[in-house]
Amino acid sequence: MPQSIPPVVPNDGLTTRTRRDQPILAVHTGDGKGKSTAAFGMALRAWNQGFDTAVFQFVKSPRWKVGEEAAFAALASAHTDRGIGGPVEWHKMGQGWSWSRKQGAEVDHAAAAAEGWREISRRLAAQQHRFYLLDEFTYPMNWGWVDTDEVVETLRNRPGKQHVVITGRRAPQALIDAANLVTEMVKVAHPMDTGQKGQRGIEW
Amino acid sequence: MPQSIPPVVPNDGLTTRTRRDQPILAVHTGDGKGKSTAAFGMALRAWNQGFDTAVFQFVKSPRWKVGEEAAFAALASAHTDRGIGGPVEWHKMGQGWSWSRKQGAEVDHAAAAAEGWREISRRLAAQQHRFYLLDEFTYPMNWGWVDTDEVVETLRNRPGKQHVVITGRRAPQALIDAANLVTEMVKVAHPMDTGQKGQRGIEW
Repeated sequence: MPQSIPPVVPNDGLTTRTRRDQPILAVHTGDGKGKSTAAFGMALRAWNQGFDTAVFQFVKSPRWKVGEEAAFAALASAHTDRGIGGPVEWHKMGQGWSWSRKQGAEVDHAAAAAEGWREISRRLAAQQHRFYLLDEFTYPMNWGWVDTDEVVETLRNRPGKQHVVITGRRAPQALIDAANLVTEMVKVAHPMDTGQKGQRGIEW
Repeated sequence: MPQSIPPVVPNDGLTTRTRRDQPILAVHTGDGKGKSTAAFGMALRAWNQGFDTAVFQFVKSPRWKVGEEAAFAALASAHTDRGIGGPVEWHKMGQGWSWSRKQGAEVDHAAAAAEGWREISRRLAAQQHRFYLLDEFTYPMNWGWVDTDEVVETLRNRPGKQHVVITGRRAPQALIDAANLVTEMVKVAHPMDTGQKGQRGIEW
């Protein structure tokens, strides 16, 4: 249900509209399901508003989340062919980023993750997109493949009105502190608990 | 990150495949963001698998979640026009359900919610869809507009392989007990906390 009345109206000198339109840095973390799926749900809204959207998946397997990828490819086509919604770019680390010359070769995942972040950082500086989805990005932070302090500083100082959503378990505290929308997904029950493996249409 | 090895393999006499393909009853509850957005994210996967999908929004305002509705309308068109993904139906209680003669008239929300559930119950019995999204459906349960015990019994005994996802705060315990995938979305930080109102592309 929508909540339309903020509990606090801050004395920050901003108009309601200016405050409302501040760009969002959202973090979906926790051990439960729904971190990425909720981020992709947000991207549906961004698409509908015509926002230029870019997804960056920091995952090793090129097969992961094919359902979402196919759906957003169809939405990107609807934008191109019928002029509805916005453009959507989809980049997967998988076997190397789409823009990289090293694509398809033996991949150094640490180097690939660092390269992915450098590209995102460049795009943020250039205000290339309006909505960024950094899927599973907490892992390269936690594994030291990207520098968390540098990520947080870049996000805090990003220009313009660029929304960023980051997903993954164990989000670093510095990232949580910098975010203005943080949800922890808590597992209450999961089919795996009773030995049920993932199935098509649900897990991918 | 995908988890492919269940912690327990139950002695239930089922093959791995049969157990894996058991239909999902998922509940997204809690006070945090992401309950509905994660459900719509799951619906993207269902669409991509070609599942016949139906969304039922138990909300009063016809304007609510227009972003998701527009995106799934585009995906439904992609199915019709290009043969990709699956069909998607979208029903909103709003000012009366689309199938109801009383649509547009002054709406008794309690009666409308009960009517919505009766329709879903009929469709479950007829195995009309493969994936059902009952958005904000915990509210009519909690307000006594539909009978929770009857809902739970109907869901427990639904035939075939029909997946159902239910969202909303304060999910009744009987529903949680019947579900095999339950996530609680916990609010860690929210823009409303600092007086920031919802904005387009993020909240709708």
